[in-house]
Amino acid sequence: MINRLTEMKFEIKAPDEDIIPYLQDKIDNLTKPKGALGQLEEIAMQIGMIQQRLSPELNNPYHILFAGDHGIADEGVSTAPKSVTYEMVLNFLKGGAGINFLCRQHGFKLKVVDAGVDYDFEENSELISRKIRKGTRNLLNEPAMLLDEMELALVSGAEQVIKAHREGCNVISFGEMGIGNTSTSALWMHYFTGIPLEKCVGAGCDYTGGIVKHKLAVLSQARDNFNGESTPETVISHFGGFETVMTVGAMLKAASLKMTFIVDGFIMTACLLAAKQLYPEVQSYAVFGHQGDELGHKLILDYLGAKPILNLGLRLGEGTGAVCAYPIIESSIRMINEMDTFKEVKVSKYF
Amino acid sequence: MINRLTEMKFEIKAPDEDIIPYLQDKIDNLTKPKGALGQLEEIAMQIGMIQQRLSPELNNPYHILFAGDHGIADEGVSTAPKSVTYEMVLNFLKGGAGINFLCRQHGFKLKVVDAGVDYDFEENSELISRKIRKGTRNLLNEPAMLLDEMELALVSGAEQVIKAHREGCNVISFGEMGIGNTSTSALWMHYFTGIPLEKCVGAGCDYTGGIVKHKLAVLSQARDNFNGESTPETVISHFGGFETVMTVGAMLKAASLKMTFIVDGFIMTACLLAAKQLYPEVQSYAVFGHQGDELGHKLILDYLGAKPILNLGLRLGEGTGAVCAYPIIESSIRMINEMDTFKEVKVSKYF
Repeated sequence: MINRLTEMKFEIKAPDEDIIPYLQDKIDNLTKPKGALGQLEEIAMQIGMIQQRLSPELNNPYHILFAGDHGIADEGVSTAPKSVTYEMVLNFLKGGAGINFLCRQHGFKLKVVDAGVDYDFEENSELISRKIRKGTRNLLNEPAMLLDEMELALVSGAEQVIKAHREGCNVISFGEMGIGNTSTSALWMHYFTGIPLEKCVGAGCDYTGGIVKHKLAVLSQARDNFNGESTPETVISHFGGFETVMTVGAMLKAASLKMTFIVDGFIMTACLLAAKQLYPEVQSYAVFGHQGDELGHKLILDYLGAKPILNLGLRLGEGTGAVCAYPIIESSIRMINEMDTFKEVKVSKYF
Repeated sequence: MINRLTEMKFEIKAPDEDIIPYLQDKIDNLTKPKGALGQLEEIAMQIGMIQQRLSPELNNPYHILFAGDHGIADEGVSTAPKSVTYEMVLNFLKGGAGINFLCRQHGFKLKVVDAGVDYDFEENSELISRKIRKGTRNLLNEPAMLLDEMELALVSGAEQVIKAHREGCNVISFGEMGIGNTSTSALWMHYFTGIPLEKCVGAGCDYTGGIVKHKLAVLSQARDNFNGESTPETVISHFGGFETVMTVGAMLKAASLKMTFIVDGFIMTACLLAAKQLYPEVQSYAVFGHQGDELGHKLILDYLGAKPILNLGLRLGEGTGAVCAYPIIESSIRMINEMDTFKEVKVSKYF
């Protein structure tokens, strides 16, 4: 697998650290007490490192939303009917969903990708069709996807990032729509962190929490039925979704192109976890947009040592928490570029 | 005091609650699981109530930054020299401080008010001069200000809000600059919440924390030296600052004009606490921008039952945490105005 991925040219190196003292010196000499802009300073440092510049820029942000259906949804692991996946895709194209107003507000180009929705969409120039299959197989009894399908999904995800990069984009976020995908993400989390499955399984979009017991029973059975060796590639393909595997490919490509990418909630963080199994350095390029309400999200973030920007109790998905956090990232870049230094103006340096 | 304030026409009523079920119905029918946009939904509800509209708007935001010096600074309660107050005022006017890039980013008109800086500024059309005195008296031994000075400060603060309101502003934030003002705010907090003084005294802008012990000793002595009756007016005037008392007047006027105002960190939250002693309903109009790093801030927020938007480890003051949070407030308003409802589009209602 790793060999095949190498053929796909995901070359991911951590940013060169030699620039750190120069960035730190610039940040510490801005007209404020040292460290007084908290996480804004940390984000500016990270993006300065990614871009290897003392005056980093954010250009032409894109949000790529991957949608796909899940065979496991047939087991009643979600209170929402499977049809919501395609209905919401149509809503994204129409512009009336949560992610739409956030993309408009912050100037993101929104690209919606059919990764594997169980629906025949009419021809629509706004919808990028990369449908691998009309939904994954039911992972309770068989692998959700074949290895070839997984590779195609990784490549298709990467392809979207390459297109954005060609348009001058250097900051990108990802989102998902797929009824059943908190289930598949919980299994990835379980395998990749070793955290007990019961701590990985949350309520998904069911705010009453009534579904959790049944969902856990189904997913425990799925785990017990899995006979394969737990390598990154078998876990990703056996328990994955087309929209989430495309996201993994997209994150890897973003990192290999030295783009900053913003991670949304539980499902997108599980994708980063999967990406990290393949290329550990991918996380250097990730900014974490928010901590969502889904049970396992805080645990994955802690596992990754990640510090999310927002904590607003969001649990919508679509990438809303990533795009909602964007103005804070923009603030960090304005800080390092627009604030005067103690050398430029006559202010006594204060602690 | 309350009578005199009534003469100043701070008429503050809590927003009419009859609109709540209509706002809730609108929010619950947007195309998302119920409650899935978390705090965005709560902010939209609050501002809908303030404006008594199902489609609230944010117009022409202003940020008013009050600056003043403090006699208590002579006791070495801050590691920064007093001169930083006027130097930073000049930096605000020049456009190179933290608050400047945030105001530019989010389209805030910035107004800088000299409430009582210990410096003779040259004539500058950008600086609003309402200097009450060149700094307060040293509250260790005497009242920081006279009652008449306090009233003038309240009126001067209110006046700035009236001007903004006339320009069509309906959302406003406040900030401060004044070496020594975490000390005065700690005393307000102590008197108005009953929380022991040692939990109210933090490091201020000194990130090393080395100053805290001395600061606490000085402020304990100031408290012991205070012989007056602890009424809101005596505590505000004896321990206040000109910039913070102006903020109290500004917050009261904003509430009486049914404007939404955004509360910054420790010092601005202490101002709200003081304002609430005079008019308890003022808090209905307050949105809390962030939780800062200053020790007592979380405690005041908990005391007020307030839920801040951001928690980024900011401790700069100037109102940076309030303006930095503005795009999130804007997101909540876009949510309620721009998202489609389940009635408008064909999406199965999902939990």
